[in-house]
Amino acid sequence: MKSKYCLLVFLLFMFVSKANSQKIDSLIVRNFFNEAFNNGKCYGQLDYLCNQIGNRISGSANAAKAVEFAYDCLKKEGYDSVWLQPVMVPHWLRGEKEVGFFIINKKKTLVHICALGNSIATSKSGIQSKVIEVKNFDELKKLGREKVEGKIVFFNRSFPDAIINGAYGITVDQRSQGPIEAAKLGAIGVVVRSMTHAYDNFPHTGATSYKDSIPKIPGCAISTIDADLLSQALKENLETEFYFKQNCVMLPDVLSYNVIAEIKGSEKPEEIILVGGHLDSWDVGTGAHDDGAGTVQSMEALRLFKAIGIKPKRTLRCVLFMNEENGLKGGLKYAELAELNKEKHLAAIETDAGGFMPREIGIAVTEEKLLSIQPWQKLLAPYGIQSINIHGGGADIGPLKKQGVVMIGYHPDGQKYFDYHHTDADTFDKVNKRELQFGAVTLAGLMWLISEYGL
Amino acid sequence: MKSKYCLLVFLLFMFVSKANSQKIDSLIVRNFFNEAFNNGKCYGQLDYLCNQIGNRISGSANAAKAVEFAYDCLKKEGYDSVWLQPVMVPHWLRGEKEVGFFIINKKKTLVHICALGNSIATSKSGIQSKVIEVKNFDELKKLGREKVEGKIVFFNRSFPDAIINGAYGITVDQRSQGPIEAAKLGAIGVVVRSMTHAYDNFPHTGATSYKDSIPKIPGCAISTIDADLLSQALKENLETEFYFKQNCVMLPDVLSYNVIAEIKGSEKPEEIILVGGHLDSWDVGTGAHDDGAGTVQSMEALRLFKAIGIKPKRTLRCVLFMNEENGLKGGLKYAELAELNKEKHLAAIETDAGGFMPREIGIAVTEEKLLSIQPWQKLLAPYGIQSINIHGGGADIGPLKKQGVVMIGYHPDGQKYFDYHHTDADTFDKVNKRELQFGAVTLAGLMWLISEYGL
Repeated sequence: MKSKYCLLVFLLFMFVSKANSQKIDSLIVRNFFNEAFNNGKCYGQLDYLCNQIGNRISGSANAAKAVEFAYDCLKKEGYDSVWLQPVMVPHWLRGEKEVGFFIINKKKTLVHICALGNSIATSKSGIQSKVIEVKNFDELKKLGREKVEGKIVFFNRSFPDAIINGAYGITVDQRSQGPIEAAKLGAIGVVVRSMTHAYDNFPHTGATSYKDSIPKIPGCAISTIDADLLSQALKENLETEFYFKQNCVMLPDVLSYNVIAEIKGSEKPEEIILVGGHLDSWDVGTGAHDDGAGTVQSMEALRLFKAIGIKPKRTLRCVLFMNEENGLKGGLKYAELAELNKEKHLAAIETDAGGFMPREIGIAVTEEKLLSIQPWQKLLAPYGIQSINIHGGGADIGPLKKQGVVMIGYHPDGQKYFDYHHTDADTFDKVNKRELQFGAVTLAGLMWLISEYGL
Repeated sequence: MKSKYCLLVFLLFMFVSKANSQKIDSLIVRNFFNEAFNNGKCYGQLDYLCNQIGNRISGSANAAKAVEFAYDCLKKEGYDSVWLQPVMVPHWLRGEKEVGFFIINKKKTLVHICALGNSIATSKSGIQSKVIEVKNFDELKKLGREKVEGKIVFFNRSFPDAIINGAYGITVDQRSQGPIEAAKLGAIGVVVRSMTHAYDNFPHTGATSYKDSIPKIPGCAISTIDADLLSQALKENLETEFYFKQNCVMLPDVLSYNVIAEIKGSEKPEEIILVGGHLDSWDVGTGAHDDGAGTVQSMEALRLFKAIGIKPKRTLRCVLFMNEENGLKGGLKYAELAELNKEKHLAAIETDAGGFMPREIGIAVTEEKLLSIQPWQKLLAPYGIQSINIHGGGADIGPLKKQGVVMIGYHPDGQKYFDYHHTDADTFDKVNKRELQFGAVTLAGLMWLISEYGL
């Protein structure tokens, strides 16, 4: 009977203590919120990054300015350490504004295009040829070399509207691998429908790639409206030709930096919890959602701890990666050095999906483990987190995975992200101050919970 | 033993049957989604409402056009009944563009103002006086008649940023009751800080009110940036005067209509489930989020049933109310006739919070009852519903409450709503097609569940 009584007291104690710790956690996240909403810095920092610096492709003068700005911002906060991590990055230049049109019976129709990132130039006078429209690589392969050789391949697979999230993942291969697959069959160029649900005249750039063993051919993106125009023209007249001219060039690699700041943990300083986004952007728009938002949210998440005077048990580190967009050199270098220096990262959180309202957090753990951290969702629900699932990850943190680091993706509401992604439309005015701040609060809250309870 | 066995079989059957019905519900909502995203009409209808008709304040020619348009849209779908419900509505005219400025040492600084809805005009040449700035009615009352008489009262209570939702509710009294409270103490006019988190130069209109026993004085809204300018001027110089001129007028009431369509229930046709928004808007912007979005979502929710060929058990009714903004005559008339005709409304769902991503549904039932309908959240979660709570209601459906109708509010993510609310910025381009469609799917899903399982 006595042992039963003891057990009861113990369970009661556990219950009260758990309830208390939940209450404390809830208060701490609320303090993050109050600080972010009353004295937040991230919106002003994003304003500066977008409107004073501008877009900041790796290797550019603007990217160097962004490094300097972020370093200064972090330095001012008086963290335990702030440093630059050198990394060599590609330096791709778009060159002059691209020109594209299609021609039926000598009548030219101008279309909105832009070179795919990393693409080679066309010849100086541009290239012109008949067009082969396909939806995917299977269709292309079925056509064979006979029908493709000497032509321009038009990849016209739409973002499927009836996919709630994930349309990008199932269409992006035509952009990232299109020039390789088309060149295998002798094509001389590639036009790719923009990766977006939006129906407008913004062409969406983004990285494409080449293989040394396969001829390199130029590739451009075409706006969704113009993709339909071109497709219609081809339906009406198979002799339709396409012309485009771009003089982009890949220059020698340039020295750049990841920017890093950390607060040392009070109990387990050797265990690092990373939060990060990427400082570079494409060379269109001003990289507001991609990934200015993630950059300033990561800085703000760290600042919130300092501002409300909380010392975390574990080490918190903000990492602003360079060159996510066209090379991932920053992410690779960071992981390489982490391994070399025998650093122990407990978890890495990536915020690179825009400054929209928080929705989901993906934490790449087992289903069993997930059950034990599900209660965190309730703590973060007031700030927008609807669910925690196991689909964690991110491009910049990806290289850390093989070191056993838990991959975590912060997923704000994604319905509008690809409206702006990699275009001139990705500008500061598209980011809502409050939504951006909710993201920073969520990240800080998540870091707090991991720091307190581990994973 | 046998009875235990029977019980087991029965429980198993119940379990399988419940799992099956959940599966069917899930499939039906997914069908709504596919239909809305592949053949949806609501975005096109909103385009027409905003860009072909424009804003549509009660009593205006545009409001009449909106009635006609909505009636035609519903009629084309071939529902069991479509009808117009006559209602007399106020007809307030803003008149010429308002003029406002403050004056220090004869120097005029122009500010962005607009008349509050239902406000009277100033004198023809405008009014000018010293300004008394207060944050709330308590402050005003403490000042007393001596300090207020003959002055213009400036209500300058900000939207508190550190309120997640609900800032409107705790600041709007200065707009809705400001002229009454100021006039009680002899003020000659009122300027009210705009109800918004946004910091910009859009003044936000919205209904104000008068009491017959208290002198009517004119009221205007001032943009948030200009409210701060005026406040700063007052800090620097107490002699600062404010001038404004507006020649709005309340004309005689006009005949208008609620627009209604219904699908008769197959099993319980006498039980009505209502979904609705309001057709009228303010006379600024084009009423895209408020409440063009709710209007077209309500029409679409009904259409989705018809389009996928589902016959609901209970009667579904789409009601597009007239005059929500400045009189609520449509809502009052609807409830009056529902009572007169002894109609039995099981539930009424209002969508009047913008065309943003779904977040919450408020269903005004007991906590106990709520537990039994909580599983609906999981069914609607893929479309954005994070929670179902008991805070249901809405202005247009409000008058039905005393008939025992369950009040339901559809609450999309609200962080940006008041950026646009009642301003020139509330235009079609602010509504995202996908987000709008998610709302229509959610409403249809909710109606399906209520129709199948009651409340």
